[in-house]
Amino acid sequence: MDLKRLWQQIEFVVEIDRLKAIVRQTLLVDGSRQEDSAEHSWHLAVLAMVLAEHSRVPVDLFRILKMILVHDLVEIDAGDTYCYDEEGNRNKAEREKKAADRIFSLLPQDQALELRSLWEEFESRRTPDAIFAASLDRFQPLLNNFRAGGIMWRKHGIKKEQVYARNSPMEEGSPILWDYAERMIEDAISKGWIGE
Amino acid sequence: MDLKRLWQQIEFVVEIDRLKAIVRQTLLVDGSRQEDSAEHSWHLAVLAMVLAEHSRVPVDLFRILKMILVHDLVEIDAGDTYCYDEEGNRNKAEREKKAADRIFSLLPQDQALELRSLWEEFESRRTPDAIFAASLDRFQPLLNNFRAGGIMWRKHGIKKEQVYARNSPMEEGSPILWDYAERMIEDAISKGWIGE
Repeated sequence: MDLKRLWQQIEFVVEIDRLKAIVRQTLLVDGSRQEDSAEHSWHLAVLAMVLAEHSRVPVDLFRILKMILVHDLVEIDAGDTYCYDEEGNRNKAEREKKAADRIFSLLPQDQALELRSLWEEFESRRTPDAIFAASLDRFQPLLNNFRAGGIMWRKHGIKKEQVYARNSPMEEGSPILWDYAERMIEDAISKGWIGE
Repeated sequence: MDLKRLWQQIEFVVEIDRLKAIVRQTLLVDGSRQEDSAEHSWHLAVLAMVLAEHSRVPVDLFRILKMILVHDLVEIDAGDTYCYDEEGNRNKAEREKKAADRIFSLLPQDQALELRSLWEEFESRRTPDAIFAASLDRFQPLLNNFRAGGIMWRKHGIKKEQVYARNSPMEEGSPILWDYAERMIEDAISKGWIGE
């Protein structure tokens, strides 16, 4: 048994515990507080299990689960960038690349390569698996914020065009989920939760 | 498109958001607070991805990931039962069965059956996948509580026999992880974090 390999794996597992401290601009459904990126990653993974049949094209759920489980690890160093934060999104890619360099390389090389390549695939949104995973990554915060009464949209003064620009790529991954999402957005606009 | 099916799936997804409010007797590694069961489920899933090679026998990681992602859903109704709470563990099985009846049946029937049977497999700990998943479910809180300085063991006055009784089944799933775990336990005893 290669003990160094096990120790590297365990130090990685310890390091990623910090994802539980990364707070997102999404509320729990009951509105009690913002969720963190570890909770979000778990929720997204279960969404994938339950909703994979709604992908536009057939996808590989096993790969999607692995992709989702590591998709936010870079936030440990780079922080969560709010999707409507223009300034933060300008240097997001660079900050996250540096984070990936550090975090994945805690693992033994073969695993570092596998997980990093799953993260890169998710980020580039070019394969069917990544496109569907990215659709869920838009759907889940929309659903949570809608069910929580739109508090985060109102707090940040988010406008209709911003929500459509952010979320309409969902249609590429799943027309059915996008249809459901559009109804939530229109309802939220009519309630005044999202600005016209 | 069967819209009723989609709506059932989405109501399930909304309902399970409540797992984020179930607090466990495990601290984050930095000791700042207790983790919740959604964070724990995510952490465990990544542990499975990284540590599956240490299972005593070959396992199916895809099935293990799905099993882990739903293994704590029953806590939404039944609460988290601390592993060293004798009273709470007496009626745990009954409370969790009732919870499973309600929560999984929010889903369309085929998915309700699939997820419930994964949960039952995890609980019964008879297949190699379930045995390894259960080993991780013991390893992760031990690792977190050890790295956080043993605060939760000290707070609850946990004794050596309790920790061995709870954790030694880990050996069945992974002798290597159990070996690592035993070193943590012995170190924690020598530091006075776990009572003799």
